[in-house]
Amino acid sequence: MNEMTKLASEQTTSVTARLADYVLASRYEDIPAAVKAEAVRTLLNWVGVAVGGCRHESIDIVLESLGPFAGAGTASVLGRDEKTGPLQAALINGISSHVFDFDDTHLHTVIHPAGPVAAAITALAEQVPVSGRDFLHALILGVEVECRLGNAVYPDHYDVGWHITGSAGVLGAAAACGKLLGLSAQEMRWALGIAATQSSGFREMFGSMCKGFHVGSAAKNGLMSALLAAKGFTSSEQAIEAKRGWANVMSTKQDYGEITDGLGESFEISLNTYKPFACGIVIHPAIDGCVQLRNEHGLTAEDVERIDLTVHPLVLELTGKAEPRVGLEGKFSVYHSCAVAIIHGKAGEAEYSDGAVRDPVAVDLRRRVHPVVDEEMPKASVNVVVTTRDGRRLETFVEHALGSLECPMTDAQLDEKFTDLCQPILGIREASDLIGLCRAVETLSDVRKLVAAASASQGSDLRA
Amino acid sequence: MNEMTKLASEQTTSVTARLADYVLASRYEDIPAAVKAEAVRTLLNWVGVAVGGCRHESIDIVLESLGPFAGAGTASVLGRDEKTGPLQAALINGISSHVFDFDDTHLHTVIHPAGPVAAAITALAEQVPVSGRDFLHALILGVEVECRLGNAVYPDHYDVGWHITGSAGVLGAAAACGKLLGLSAQEMRWALGIAATQSSGFREMFGSMCKGFHVGSAAKNGLMSALLAAKGFTSSEQAIEAKRGWANVMSTKQDYGEITDGLGESFEISLNTYKPFACGIVIHPAIDGCVQLRNEHGLTAEDVERIDLTVHPLVLELTGKAEPRVGLEGKFSVYHSCAVAIIHGKAGEAEYSDGAVRDPVAVDLRRRVHPVVDEEMPKASVNVVVTTRDGRRLETFVEHALGSLECPMTDAQLDEKFTDLCQPILGIREASDLIGLCRAVETLSDVRKLVAAASASQGSDLRA
Repeated sequence: MNEMTKLASEQTTSVTARLADYVLASRYEDIPAAVKAEAVRTLLNWVGVAVGGCRHESIDIVLESLGPFAGAGTASVLGRDEKTGPLQAALINGISSHVFDFDDTHLHTVIHPAGPVAAAITALAEQVPVSGRDFLHALILGVEVECRLGNAVYPDHYDVGWHITGSAGVLGAAAACGKLLGLSAQEMRWALGIAATQSSGFREMFGSMCKGFHVGSAAKNGLMSALLAAKGFTSSEQAIEAKRGWANVMSTKQDYGEITDGLGESFEISLNTYKPFACGIVIHPAIDGCVQLRNEHGLTAEDVERIDLTVHPLVLELTGKAEPRVGLEGKFSVYHSCAVAIIHGKAGEAEYSDGAVRDPVAVDLRRRVHPVVDEEMPKASVNVVVTTRDGRRLETFVEHALGSLECPMTDAQLDEKFTDLCQPILGIREASDLIGLCRAVETLSDVRKLVAAASASQGSDLRA
Repeated sequence: MNEMTKLASEQTTSVTARLADYVLASRYEDIPAAVKAEAVRTLLNWVGVAVGGCRHESIDIVLESLGPFAGAGTASVLGRDEKTGPLQAALINGISSHVFDFDDTHLHTVIHPAGPVAAAITALAEQVPVSGRDFLHALILGVEVECRLGNAVYPDHYDVGWHITGSAGVLGAAAACGKLLGLSAQEMRWALGIAATQSSGFREMFGSMCKGFHVGSAAKNGLMSALLAAKGFTSSEQAIEAKRGWANVMSTKQDYGEITDGLGESFEISLNTYKPFACGIVIHPAIDGCVQLRNEHGLTAEDVERIDLTVHPLVLELTGKAEPRVGLEGKFSVYHSCAVAIIHGKAGEAEYSDGAVRDPVAVDLRRRVHPVVDEEMPKASVNVVVTTRDGRRLETFVEHALGSLECPMTDAQLDEKFTDLCQPILGIREASDLIGLCRAVETLSDVRKLVAAASASQGSDLRA
């Protein structure tokens, strides 16, 4: 075997080991400040959506059906008073953070990176003392692992039907928990292996409660993998790259260089994005354009005669519902979305409630939204023309919508999204305090302070 | 659409629904007596291997690492004093029943059918009252579901690398638990869907603790699926047959007729087999031949000059280890296996202990075992010639080994296997009583009596 062949062979036979070694060797002080800053934004966004989703019916069902079989209540359900076992807490907080489809997105792989990792380490951090620095570090590394795995197999893995946030996320969760537990190199390989062999979740489940369940399961199973490995539960040590391992069984594409090249030099969490609008990303440019014109010209619904959109074909294909009847249908309506953008200047979860969809002002305005398909229009772009009742023609072209990599949400916009989600659940001051704790996570000696602030609902005695 | 096309289309778009409907409609009294009798044998064999495996290191690790995070101790760990939560009990009892690779086999799919299903319903039966009849019925139906699913996708699904006992077993476990919980038709479809979307487990893990973990996970996750569905947790209702569902994502072969044809007319549990020997099935014919000659001629190790085998090539490929050093290596040694067959007249778990492998009599005899490969020899067969020191040439041709479908273990042989496994753990009389309870399962008003008898170790106060 010549040197080149040997090198290539090593690269494809030690993927799991090299990834495990990197996670263990990574030092917080070596991570660039900009990466840490993005991780704080990822954390803030995640806490916001997890608290925001905590009253969804699927959470009630998990607590009712599995609650009696959870461990002692040493872990928090974000946004709620209930305590449960850490495995179940990881499951629930993972579900709640994805249930509105309002969480973060790693655009290259469509992984929602925070959910599996953050839900797992949040539950773990209530069992063993974890500083804010270590917590943020584990979040960065867990996201790194799952997104690199995603890069290695996307798009084939996703196209065949795997919900990649679950199927890659479980390894990210295991890596992050393993880092916090101080696993040895061999234990970390086992943790990744135990996680890999639980990798699961079909896209067929989109539209059902199982979609959020995939995120929660990845968190729960990743945490479990690290706990098992820490006590010596064995697995294959080539779980990712082996002939019958993760990449080969679950994908027809395997680009191992995506996993092992440049570890410690680039950070996938830097590529994370956050949704400003609580609906499918394909209509974000149109909403953004309407909000811009509204704010620039002080428009109200009454001012608007009609809204003309020039859109990519996917917009009508995916979100062409002209007369939505309930909130969920509103999320698939470019008409409703543009209407609330003008009326409220935003399109958060509240603007997709059943009430918001039935609001007569919204119903009236959305009937005056006229999208036209243009094959030449880029998917990320839109042209919006608002014609006012007093005869003005207001136009804007949005190349990249707010929330894209090119036009990220500002910190202030992230705070506003957080507040909209958390204030009805936690209370005004509490939501504001929690933003402060998230932004200051690096200074916390014990991250339980943050978890506690995020986990008691408004008016609860527990919050005192 | 003409009638034929319509029928074909219905058959491939309602697989999940039809399977769910069948499980719910099945009546115990309609199941043939011979099928029930085989189910009793399946149960007996499963309890035996689960109790027998209960002291394996992997069980200790699960209890140590996850025990603190399990639910209240309302479920039993078979063979041990510990109580744990039902989800964890399902996990552990599934692991222990597979840890010796000594459990049952559905030969067409190489599924080990009892593990996922029995471990799940045993844990459930300690939470809600279940009669022995209902328990046996659920076992039959769970095995039916997992093996039919296996038939639909085998061999492609297995060949690509899925450990089919886990990946199909989780749906069998969900179906069985759902039957006991009295789910509605829609809830049963959800239960199958929640289970399907957790389907997992790579063959790459063979040789590590994760192999047994797959069986336990299938039990745990199947039970969880039924519990969630019972409270309204939704999933796709076409989880098996949808474009991005179980069969299409996890296999390149989908023969849906294997799932839906002849439901209620044939029963896969009738095709179940039990291993008489605690090693790979490929050397069972050789062991069987040696035991036959030993018993027929009253042979001891001292009588034997040499043993000549004519074997299928796979025998040496898989079990050609001439000088095993530890028990586990003994399982991959046709030499050691034939030696203990002559010395002990059996090849149970005890004959593959480290001590048994180092026994000087076994070491000496195994060096006189001479296998020769014959491409013409069927995989299921062997020719054995024992040459004795007093010059006799004793020969036997084994067409089908004991434990095959053609030559099933007798009830007495199953009892002996059970006793060998359970007596060191439960005690002599207790093991015998437990055989009686398994054989009389249909008469039990509450199956907890059987579970209790199987779950306290020798000398425990709990067994009184």
